[in-house]
Amino acid sequence: MTLKIYKKKLDYSYSFGIHPTIELLESRPQSVSTVLLSADTQESDGIAKIKALCKRNNINFDYADKAISKLAIKEKTHVIGVFKKFKSPLKANENHVVLVNPSIPGNLGTIIRSMVGFNFNNLAIIYPASDIFDPTAVRASMGAVFKVNYEYYPSFLQYLEDFKGQNIYPFVLNGKNKLTDMQFTKPSTLVFGNEGSGLGEYFDQFKESVTIEHSKNIESLNLSSAVSISLYQFSKNK
Amino acid sequence: MTLKIYKKKLDYSYSFGIHPTIELLESRPQSVSTVLLSADTQESDGIAKIKALCKRNNINFDYADKAISKLAIKEKTHVIGVFKKFKSPLKANENHVVLVNPSIPGNLGTIIRSMVGFNFNNLAIIYPASDIFDPTAVRASMGAVFKVNYEYYPSFLQYLEDFKGQNIYPFVLNGKNKLTDMQFTKPSTLVFGNEGSGLGEYFDQFKESVTIEHSKNIESLNLSSAVSISLYQFSKNK
Repeated sequence: MTLKIYKKKLDYSYSFGIHPTIELLESRPQSVSTVLLSADTQESDGIAKIKALCKRNNINFDYADKAISKLAIKEKTHVIGVFKKFKSPLKANENHVVLVNPSIPGNLGTIIRSMVGFNFNNLAIIYPASDIFDPTAVRASMGAVFKVNYEYYPSFLQYLEDFKGQNIYPFVLNGKNKLTDMQFTKPSTLVFGNEGSGLGEYFDQFKESVTIEHSKNIESLNLSSAVSISLYQFSKNK
Repeated sequence: MTLKIYKKKLDYSYSFGIHPTIELLESRPQSVSTVLLSADTQESDGIAKIKALCKRNNINFDYADKAISKLAIKEKTHVIGVFKKFKSPLKANENHVVLVNPSIPGNLGTIIRSMVGFNFNNLAIIYPASDIFDPTAVRASMGAVFKVNYEYYPSFLQYLEDFKGQNIYPFVLNGKNKLTDMQFTKPSTLVFGNEGSGLGEYFDQFKESVTIEHSKNIESLNLSSAVSISLYQFSKNK
């Protein structure tokens, strides 16, 4: 099979770099089709671990400099994991993050990394939105993308339909509650809007809307910063 | 003057986009040499504001599609502010952030945006490091870069030399204190390491080293997430 430069319509994608590829091999070995190594890769603990994981799971690894230089998004990529895209539906009665129309793959990956860091393992994404398997998102997640359940929904209402038991907390600029004062009721769903436009008016009706207070010298926080702060605060919830 | 594609050695740089350019014109009008607009820019509140700020400060604005398409890092850029790089030394007796060897311009910008959001207005950067005036950093800061004092230092010791009265809090993976328990003494300096390698061993000696607790399912948080969380927690300090 000739590997193609990543496009959303492909049914496979790539993990670039040692650490994300280890996470892939540990979390989703059944999804891995092959691992590519560059010939000048120096032996290291990480590389040894990748080889051992491939052997244990009967996964081929190949020295393939040409393929790597064609596929990689960054220079000096030594390792690429090739994996088949997978589904992993959300679980009810757990805490969720919902991202409404996230548009920057790097943000999406960074958010997933923070989610796993603060024990949020379920992510709903409302279309239109970035592609969770975009190699830039996979890379920014540092492989955390292989540890979360995720699902795309055509609308927030459709998500609500599926998860009626969740307590919904939309994060908006003029919320009814301050994050610092919040006591979240579980199972919780934290909802965040698009990088540029935030959440729409629809979310103003929720009495549990939340604002992260900040100085007036900025209009808003970066989306992944806002999500990370919120998950951190949530993790301190009694 | 023919404007060049950005390089670190130039003595000027660019703000791309409406919001960052407004912040530039409001915070640093004396540094602005010109503003470029694309001819198909639709009139909007933002554009009207830019024109008014130019007029008030006697700054030229030009319709310059060719220059914009040459200089912009993103498609659909309608506005570019051209500004002369400036110095803005740190103030003693205020709270500082020190970034040791930050290597990703987007992270640097996002961190500055969070800093301004949580009233940290002084940033020291230890070489080697990303360029604070890289247009990607300027853009990620959403113009917050025009509101902070900053200074580059060859080493952390040199920084310490200049600011002996600061209370130093290095953020490390195995710190002596948990962020959630911290009471910071002001003026505080929060110190963060490189994206990949963190802070070196030297910082382990500090009894005020701090860790952001997270699950074992990730190795570390993204740098800008870690800084944002820390500044948020700091802002709740009594």
